Amino acid sequence: MSSSTENHDQPTVTVLGLGPMGRALAGAFLEAGLRVTVWNRTAGRDRELVERGATAARTAEEAAAASGLTVVCVVNYDAADAILRRPAVTDTLKGRTVVNLTADTPGRARDTATWAADHGISYLDGAIMTPATTIGTPDAVFLYSGPEHLHHDSRPVLDALGGAHTHLGTEIGRAAAYDIALLDIFWTAMAGYAHALAVARAEGITAQELAPFAKGIAAILPPLFELDVEDIDNGNYTGDLNPITSTVSTMAHIIHTSEEHAIDASLMRAAEGLARRAVGRGHGTDGFLRVIEIMNPR
Amino acid sequence: MSSSTENHDQPTVTVLGLGPMGRALAGAFLEAGLRVTVWNRTAGRDRELVERGATAARTAEEAAAASGLTVVCVVNYDAADAILRRPAVTDTLKGRTVVNLTADTPGRARDTATWAADHGISYLDGAIMTPATTIGTPDAVFLYSGPEHLHHDSRPVLDALGGAHTHLGTEIGRAAAYDIALLDIFWTAMAGYAHALAVARAEGITAQELAPFAKGIAAILPPLFELDVEDIDNGNYTGDLNPITSTVSTMAHIIHTSEEHAIDASLMRAAEGLARRAVGRGHGTDGFLRVIEIMNPR
Repeated sequence: MSSSTENHDQPTVTVLGLGPMGRALAGAFLEAGLRVTVWNRTAGRDRELVERGATAARTAEEAAAASGLTVVCVVNYDAADAILRRPAVTDTLKGRTVVNLTADTPGRARDTATWAADHGISYLDGAIMTPATTIGTPDAVFLYSGPEHLHHDSRPVLDALGGAHTHLGTEIGRAAAYDIALLDIFWTAMAGYAHALAVARAEGITAQELAPFAKGIAAILPPLFELDVEDIDNGNYTGDLNPITSTVSTMAHIIHTSEEHAIDASLMRAAEGLARRAVGRGHGTDGFLRVIEIMNPR
Repeated sequence: MSSSTENHDQPTVTVLGLGPMGRALAGAFLEAGLRVTVWNRTAGRDRELVERGATAARTAEEAAAASGLTVVCVVNYDAADAILRRPAVTDTLKGRTVVNLTADTPGRARDTATWAADHGISYLDGAIMTPATTIGTPDAVFLYSGPEHLHHDSRPVLDALGGAHTHLGTEIGRAAAYDIALLDIFWTAMAGYAHALAVARAEGITAQELAPFAKGIAAILPPLFELDVEDIDNGNYTGDLNPITSTVSTMAHIIHTSEEHAIDASLMRAAEGLARRAVGRGHGTDGFLRVIEIMNPR
């Protein structure tokens, strides 16, 4: 429905990186009526977006020159640096804003902020917590960190991506740190699920049979992750209902069953090792989360 | 409210083992008006139950003799064997029913079934999937395996424990196998949560700050554990939305951030190792759950 004449008063935005997530971002901007310029390192990813009204830039610097705000979404910060730190691009970005939605470590975000400051570039870091299919819908979740005013000024553009946009603080690594912590929970849980399915299959239980119970046990987690958080922050780990000694016993049963079936139990062995270290240091009557202090002593 | 005269027509039940879970079971039986006999290896755990109307047996064989159905709930099968396999107890149980709600491996349940058959004891194995606080409430979840008729005949007694009672099949190890698989999911996820909190704290993020987001990421899991289960059973692991190569990249970021803070990353290193083996075998475009086949090849 959008045409270039309709869009002249709309904000402009540039999207660098047209993988599945970058294409979803550019598509949501187009859908919201913004004037969108796109570029990707390898050619051919922009065709559908151009058909929908996007302008295809021939180079990254040409793309950066087209908008006051450039959104970067590539595979990691090595890829982002390879684009942004070429002198022609860096020079073009001077006085403009970069919002980096690429996933990497908090350290890389901090390093990029230093580079941006050195070159007069306004820099906001961000993390996308939901799949590409959620972009442009109310289900999308975006986290940001960096200068408050930059987040405020960028919101008219970023809001076009739909969903919830949370500014976590001015410390530039904050969004990446939340991202890392949340993905840590997610992928460790997924690894446990995969292991459980491997053991279940060895015991003659299908994924379909386990599913309703697996769903039930997973449903315990969301409310649990809000529980006792003040105690955790204060280093108090009550084990009244479930002491670590009991958890260690359970973990040993899981490892034993797994290895009886010649199934690698290295994941649970790592978890059990942490729990046994907590017990060995005299915390056997505490709750399992005492292992936080084993990993990161105060 | 219950008195011994009121209870003479009620079913009888014996509970061996009076840890927190055993006490909860005996308490729920009393609450339902059953005639309950209790015994524990170490003395003094039965006082409150006796005040509520339970009969305290002096020995395990005396307790077993008091009821047609004996529920066992101790720390593991070593502890259960130490009670049940003493000749005086084994002889008393002949012709009676044992429901073992003790947690251990499927192999131990199978071994106990063989022992029971050798001694003319009816044997039903079970697993309690919810905390002691849920016993006697609609939130309790019990799994059983073993002879169908035994489950049927025991239900009038077991239903007094409240909640949902599912018979998973006649194969005696089945309840323990489900228990192991579900606890595998739960405790691996908890270990991931603990690690995430350790990394978050190193990045200046408190458990209270992370909580709403941790809850949000955990809420993705229950529906996910019902997804694509038929494909999983058929060995099809689509990676269209999220290939393992992308997961490996995320895991590397988590490990890097963790170890930059000198926080043990052995758990995620184990998960990453599995994922990298899947990639190394040519499955890089598959989804992460391909690691099931790495752990348990068909």
